[in-house]
Amino acid sequence: MDKIRVGILGYGNLGKGVELALAHNSDMELAGIFTRRQGVATRNGQALSIDAIGDYRDKIDVLILCGGSATDLPEQGKRMLAGFNTVDSFDTHARIPEHFAAMDKIGKRSGHLGIISVGWDPGLFSIARLLFGSVLPNGKDYTFWGRGVSQGHSDAIRRIDGVLDARQYTVPVPQALDRVRSGENPELTTRQKHTRECYVVAAPDADRQRIEREIVTMPNYFADYDTTVHFIDAEQMRRDHAQIPHGGFVIRSGDTYSDKKHLLELRVQLDSNPEFTSSVLVAYARAIYRMHKQGRTGCVTVFDVPLGMLSQSSADELRAHLL
Amino acid sequence: MDKIRVGILGYGNLGKGVELALAHNSDMELAGIFTRRQGVATRNGQALSIDAIGDYRDKIDVLILCGGSATDLPEQGKRMLAGFNTVDSFDTHARIPEHFAAMDKIGKRSGHLGIISVGWDPGLFSIARLLFGSVLPNGKDYTFWGRGVSQGHSDAIRRIDGVLDARQYTVPVPQALDRVRSGENPELTTRQKHTRECYVVAAPDADRQRIEREIVTMPNYFADYDTTVHFIDAEQMRRDHAQIPHGGFVIRSGDTYSDKKHLLELRVQLDSNPEFTSSVLVAYARAIYRMHKQGRTGCVTVFDVPLGMLSQSSADELRAHLL
Repeated sequence: MDKIRVGILGYGNLGKGVELALAHNSDMELAGIFTRRQGVATRNGQALSIDAIGDYRDKIDVLILCGGSATDLPEQGKRMLAGFNTVDSFDTHARIPEHFAAMDKIGKRSGHLGIISVGWDPGLFSIARLLFGSVLPNGKDYTFWGRGVSQGHSDAIRRIDGVLDARQYTVPVPQALDRVRSGENPELTTRQKHTRECYVVAAPDADRQRIEREIVTMPNYFADYDTTVHFIDAEQMRRDHAQIPHGGFVIRSGDTYSDKKHLLELRVQLDSNPEFTSSVLVAYARAIYRMHKQGRTGCVTVFDVPLGMLSQSSADELRAHLL
Repeated sequence: MDKIRVGILGYGNLGKGVELALAHNSDMELAGIFTRRQGVATRNGQALSIDAIGDYRDKIDVLILCGGSATDLPEQGKRMLAGFNTVDSFDTHARIPEHFAAMDKIGKRSGHLGIISVGWDPGLFSIARLLFGSVLPNGKDYTFWGRGVSQGHSDAIRRIDGVLDARQYTVPVPQALDRVRSGENPELTTRQKHTRECYVVAAPDADRQRIEREIVTMPNYFADYDTTVHFIDAEQMRRDHAQIPHGGFVIRSGDTYSDKKHLLELRVQLDSNPEFTSSVLVAYARAIYRMHKQGRTGCVTVFDVPLGMLSQSSADELRAHLL
């Protein structure tokens, strides 16, 4: 069987993760890694220039967009879907409808298929919310994140004067999780659901009290949470906070017509957020390849993909062994 | 919008659950309840005779098969798919390929669409096994059931001489769950994964020691497990064991190429196994209605259904609010 030829655009954490993930997916092969930067070394060679990607239209079945930020992806997505089937991990929830509409139009015109917002949230968590809500319509959803590193919040701390480095962990409040799991369907405030732990390397002469105050009162990021700030040195940061773990919980609690209560829970616990996200992107690249072969064009999301399309196994094998 | 007209065949626990579930699904309406028995009262009237179902071909969009046992369903499924779109909860894992092949042939010939093996296992647990395995290909799956009532095992005890009534609970071993969640990927024997708790009402003159011995040594059912037997009276049985709770866990633990470990877990905890199963059947009836409208015929499983088809919400709403 011909292998699915996968291209990678962008070579940060996600792109590197996709490169590695292909090794666990024997029905796929790497067709090329493309970057905007010059002279980037990859695991087995050199990255190619984004300017050359037009020459690869017949050599790539699916292009996985690993752009560095949520702002890159809409622009990159639109340009690439004109020539390739694409997968992206666009995660700005509020702007998904707009991104979808733009991609759907371009894909239908170019005859390609793109999937947006793939990963674990959006992605696996979205699937859980949809599935749980459909099979238990009378109930309430809860999403908890963590314990894990929030890149955006870590960046916000780094922008404070006198901060050399920072790492922020989002932590679900155990009592809130317990209350949800008990089936009482509580109304929970932002503060009741998560706490925020910050590890900060300050400049030697910096005013730590001021830094702490600036963090815990920062609107949108920290003011609505119980936030703790720990000052550590650069060596501790390197030793204890080099990883990018994450995870969380989607819980739906509800009842069926009589007073019978039911609880559905998806839990995800990841040593490396980008490596796992990459692995999800690769599985959905397989689905996009297959759906495009069946004639589908435009844009889809995880809600449109029959799950069997994700697997290396045949439909017969899946029915015999996994159903 | 026209409502989806749902028929129910069989009026045991499952059929009653479907009847109630329709109340939480405002896009559906009950088109009729059919039974083999005569003069069965339903919530709002009388059940109809199975012999009259041929007259309902134009009045039912999807027929949910709530046959009493796994042996009923293949026969019933084949007969009904000749005239209706169908949903069943066939759960004899080993015979799924055979049931699928027979149904697919009939559905393609009759122009109808059937879905088999819907519920939570098979069903939601199958989805978890497929999804988890696809996004984390290098790992190991574990399925635990319980704490919950196993109808088959309860029946097996009831067949023992001197037993008036029995209820059997399957219970996951907490230490086994802990080991799996720790990421060590242990090899677990049947005995290490689950224990079995039996509550038995014995005849007044029965030899309890013999009954207990017959239970714990029963091949296939109990011999491979640590089984405890509690003798109770009929009143205790009525008071403490009238419910049919169940649930369980699907856990996949694995790594991505580097040494990064990840854990994915689906947990289901149900006050009433048949009521929840009914609720799942109803959501899949919606999907079958929609897929048939799109021209699909034959047989499918939960692996073939795009998840968005399950929801009462439109694709636009799902992308805006659940993705």
